[in-house]
Amino acid sequence: MRVRWAFEEVGQKYDVRLVSFGEMKEPAYRKLHPFGQIPTYRDGNLVLFESGAIVLHIAEQHAGLLPIEGNARSRAIAWMFAALNTVEPPIVERSMAMMLERNQSWYAERLAGLEERVRVRLRELSECLGDAEWLDGAFSAADLLMVTVLRRFSSSSDLGHPNLAAYVARAEARPAYQRAFADQLAVFTVSQSKA
Amino acid sequence: MRVRWAFEEVGQKYDVRLVSFGEMKEPAYRKLHPFGQIPTYRDGNLVLFESGAIVLHIAEQHAGLLPIEGNARSRAIAWMFAALNTVEPPIVERSMAMMLERNQSWYAERLAGLEERVRVRLRELSECLGDAEWLDGAFSAADLLMVTVLRRFSSSSDLGHPNLAAYVARAEARPAYQRAFADQLAVFTVSQSKA
Repeated sequence: MRVRWAFEEVGQKYDVRLVSFGEMKEPAYRKLHPFGQIPTYRDGNLVLFESGAIVLHIAEQHAGLLPIEGNARSRAIAWMFAALNTVEPPIVERSMAMMLERNQSWYAERLAGLEERVRVRLRELSECLGDAEWLDGAFSAADLLMVTVLRRFSSSSDLGHPNLAAYVARAEARPAYQRAFADQLAVFTVSQSKA
Repeated sequence: MRVRWAFEEVGQKYDVRLVSFGEMKEPAYRKLHPFGQIPTYRDGNLVLFESGAIVLHIAEQHAGLLPIEGNARSRAIAWMFAALNTVEPPIVERSMAMMLERNQSWYAERLAGLEERVRVRLRELSECLGDAEWLDGAFSAADLLMVTVLRRFSSSSDLGHPNLAAYVARAEARPAYQRAFADQLAVFTVSQSKA
C-alpha cells in the first residue's frame, strides 16, 4: 500500500507482481529481498527492498513527495525515519502480542505495558502535530509513511487523539490514496474469491 | 556514536552538546526532538532528529558515505532502512525484555521467542553478507548503521556467525570509528567520574 500510494501521488504508472508467502522464503526471492519480506521494487537493473527506502527512492525520482528546499527536504526525511523507527515499532509489538500471545498466562499484564508505550508515542505525536494539516508544511512522503503506521489501528478512534484521527482522514481523502486503496482492495477481493 | 562516526568518516568537525535524561523530556528539548530522545543535529537553522536521518543527511552533504552512482546509492539507502527497521527492532525488543522483564514469571518463555526472532534475522543477514567485506560494494552509511545495530550485543561471539563478527571487527578497525569511539568513551569517563 505504501508503494502504491507513493506511485499514485507522483502520477507514475507501475506494474504489480504478487508473491505468495511460500515464494517469499524461496532462494530466488531472497535474491531480491534478503529477509524474505514484501515489498520489493524493480526498475530496470535496480532492485530495492524496505518500503521506506522504496518510497524515498520514488520521492527522489519524481516531484510531489518531498520539498524542494534542502532543509525542508531533510526534515521530511527525518519524519520518514521517525514514522518507521520510533512510532511504528511499539505499535507492531502490540499487534504481534495480540496475535501471538493472547493465550499466554502473561498476556493481560504484558499488553498493559505495550499499550502504555503506544500511548506515550501517540501523545507525543499528537502534541507535535497540534492543529497542523501535515507533519511539516505540505503533504510529503513523511505523512504517507506516518499515516500507514497509524492505520495499523483497526479504528481511528483507537488513536485516542482527535487531531491524529483527522490527520489520517485527511490523508485518506486524497485522490492518490483512494486510487491506491481501491487497487489494493481489488487484489485482496480476487485472492479471497480464489480461496 | 552513529553521528560521531559519520562525521569522522567524512572528516567534518562537529561540536557536541550533552543532554541529561531530565532535559530530554523538557518542552524546550521537545522543540528539537518531538519524542524526547537523542540524538538531535543542528546546523544553522536546520534541526534534525532520528539517527538514521542525521547520518543520511551527513552522507548527502559530504562525500564518503554513499556511492555516487544512482542505483548503488539507492541500494545503500535501502540497507540503511533495513538496519534500522528490520534488523534492529527484534534486537531492541530482546534487550528491553532482558532489562525490564527478567523478574516476571513469563521471562524464560518469552526470551526464547525473542531470541528465535533475533536468530532468524542474523542468519539471513549472515547469508546475505557471505564473504563480502561490506553489505553492497564499498563501505557506506549502511554498514555504519548495521554495525552499530550488531554492536548492541555485548560480545560479537553472541552474533553466532563468524562472518558477522568479522564484519563488525572490520568496521571497528576503521580510523574514523576509532576516533569516534575514543571521543564517546571520553565523555562517558568524565560523566562517570562526576557521578
